[in-house]
Amino acid sequence: MTEPRDDRFDHLFASTVRERLGREGYGSSASPNAEDAVPLTYGFPYPDSFPTAALEAATETVLEEEGADALQYGGGENVDRLRDGLLAREEARGIDATREQLLLTNGATHALDAVCSTFLDPGDEVLVEAPTFVWSLAVLDNRGAALTGVEIDENGLDPDALEATLEAREAADEPTPKLLYTIPEFQNPTGATLSRERRERVLELAEEYDFLIVADDAYGELRFSGESPPPLSALDDSGRVIRLGTVSKTIAPGVRTGWIVAHEALADQIGGMAAGGTNTFTQSVLGRYFDAGHYEPTLDDLLAGYERRRDAMLDSLERHLPPGSSWTEPAGGFFLWVTLPAGVDTEELLPLAAEEGVTYLPGERFFVEDGRGTRSARLSFSHCSPEDLEAGVAALARATETYLE
Amino acid sequence: MTEPRDDRFDHLFASTVRERLGREGYGSSASPNAEDAVPLTYGFPYPDSFPTAALEAATETVLEEEGADALQYGGGENVDRLRDGLLAREEARGIDATREQLLLTNGATHALDAVCSTFLDPGDEVLVEAPTFVWSLAVLDNRGAALTGVEIDENGLDPDALEATLEAREAADEPTPKLLYTIPEFQNPTGATLSRERRERVLELAEEYDFLIVADDAYGELRFSGESPPPLSALDDSGRVIRLGTVSKTIAPGVRTGWIVAHEALADQIGGMAAGGTNTFTQSVLGRYFDAGHYEPTLDDLLAGYERRRDAMLDSLERHLPPGSSWTEPAGGFFLWVTLPAGVDTEELLPLAAEEGVTYLPGERFFVEDGRGTRSARLSFSHCSPEDLEAGVAALARATETYLE
Repeated sequence: MTEPRDDRFDHLFASTVRERLGREGYGSSASPNAEDAVPLTYGFPYPDSFPTAALEAATETVLEEEGADALQYGGGENVDRLRDGLLAREEARGIDATREQLLLTNGATHALDAVCSTFLDPGDEVLVEAPTFVWSLAVLDNRGAALTGVEIDENGLDPDALEATLEAREAADEPTPKLLYTIPEFQNPTGATLSRERRERVLELAEEYDFLIVADDAYGELRFSGESPPPLSALDDSGRVIRLGTVSKTIAPGVRTGWIVAHEALADQIGGMAAGGTNTFTQSVLGRYFDAGHYEPTLDDLLAGYERRRDAMLDSLERHLPPGSSWTEPAGGFFLWVTLPAGVDTEELLPLAAEEGVTYLPGERFFVEDGRGTRSARLSFSHCSPEDLEAGVAALARATETYLE
Repeated sequence: MTEPRDDRFDHLFASTVRERLGREGYGSSASPNAEDAVPLTYGFPYPDSFPTAALEAATETVLEEEGADALQYGGGENVDRLRDGLLAREEARGIDATREQLLLTNGATHALDAVCSTFLDPGDEVLVEAPTFVWSLAVLDNRGAALTGVEIDENGLDPDALEATLEAREAADEPTPKLLYTIPEFQNPTGATLSRERRERVLELAEEYDFLIVADDAYGELRFSGESPPPLSALDDSGRVIRLGTVSKTIAPGVRTGWIVAHEALADQIGGMAAGGTNTFTQSVLGRYFDAGHYEPTLDDLLAGYERRRDAMLDSLERHLPPGSSWTEPAGGFFLWVTLPAGVDTEELLPLAAEEGVTYLPGERFFVEDGRGTRSARLSFSHCSPEDLEAGVAALARATETYLE
């Protein structure tokens, strides 16, 4: 028995919080972790992926050479090195940005939150992919956004569906959405990448319908095969793309450092709304890490590690899942999206799966609307060893077969 | 000549941002730094104060002993050690809190922002001290709060003024403020500490008028002499005090780690609104730092360092400032509040002072209302050497005399 929630202060909460008290919020569902089960649940990097020795060396150099600056408000020259290192990475991907356009943040979610604060009044409309990253839904929801999902397929966000949504809103005299939140590269949760042609159409629609595009690029540097289309920012002549980056997947989540690249007229105001300073100690360590040349070789190792995991998972899915199942085959990133045979409800399946030895995030949690994605689940291949991935997929197959019996 | 601001996206900003575009926001005034001037401007710790060697040792231990955990989402056992270390410090000050009541944040401003998100709808009333910390005014303003100042004197926030404000609002049928934001210990900018008796009255008023108290305690551990009254949280039976802490002043700003202690019914919701994860790498380093016993001896050194600086500043003020000047004499913290002779406008004086060799923050910037504090300034004694403090105060005296001629 759980104790009843203490509601004595409920009347003092903001309206977004009060509304949430009466319903389940995004990301607040029961945690699907279970002891002894293979966690295909979260987008955790695999433990061996972290460059601990290089970070240790970088920390030592930073503290010995510029300790007082690195620990002071604003940081010192290693923070500038981080800025330069990130801008160089962006340039390599075709994005020409100045230091004034780059804002350092405490991770990509902090970045998204700052963007929300800058643009959204409560009730403002935001378009998101259907499905999309559940924690971003939570952040948008916390900021009072009204959310509408737009279809996505194996080539990413569908521009026809986007245009239809925009036209329908216009015809109904509803306000134009202010923001489109998209994950163009190895999308979370589907693994899809937005095609070049679609990128251009999405940019045209942004200009035509006067909205901004928030492009969350957490996974873009983790491509195992094929060629990446240019990031939206590299194709953007209008200044409408707000790009979010993070080193959580390419260095480590614990160093909690992200960034925003945006048109200066936007970056100025986002900077003013990003509450609080950032962690100059960590930024200095990362600046030194970039400057010492650790980033690229580490990334090469990561690519090999993640590709091996993706291959193991695809191979396991092929061998174990029952007929009627399908899944995406991402060329990079952390996740794929599996759809189980007709009759399966992945939320209902979860306790059974946990008992069999695997956990995952049910598909429905990634949609704005209820009742969608109920046959699907996000599987993360980023965290486990290839052997555990195989065991997890086998457990998912057993649970599915038992469920369908 | 400055270029005109690029306004092409102005219509897409949130209303709080759009309102700010037309006026000067809190904290957005021209930076009063000047090369070669003694900076009495910001609350920077003095450079020698940072425990770089201890942080380096802690980092080495963390990365070698639990690298993968410390760098992963959520962190490992050293994050728990940090929680325990902070709870032990709180307990030493009379605050009995559980782990569930403690939320780690990316600094105290991130903490205040999360509190604002949890409780404030745009237009909600918040009471603040007059004067109060300018960056907190900016955060509250960004979140759309309607701000009202309540008088403060050498014993802190005046409960009679607070009660009068609350009564007047009630009489005018205006909504009760949801939050009172106060800095009870060595207040920023005045250095005042709220007396024990007043603490009890403020708590009674919170209960009577049904509001929450946000107690920002950035400086409470930095007392040079005398006895501290118990923190508001230690006197609070109603669960109405939300306490904000930070290690920015007791370890270093660059490690950007703060916390919130609140009633569980509040902490649950604030935790859900604090966007994004926190920096587990830094938290692990700090956890190890606490666990290795570095916190208290370092604090003793800091107390000596800051007391010497405060004494130097008081002594310099006594010797240099012209008749008609007055200042507060804080028993701890980083700041004092100086009031110059009648006829001085500290905003107008600033360029002259910078030329003479000193900068400060003009008093008016710390008030909600225009036209207050115009004879006053916040002087920080935290950053400079005693010799520079003396030179800075002498420059302020020269500038004042020139201004009055």
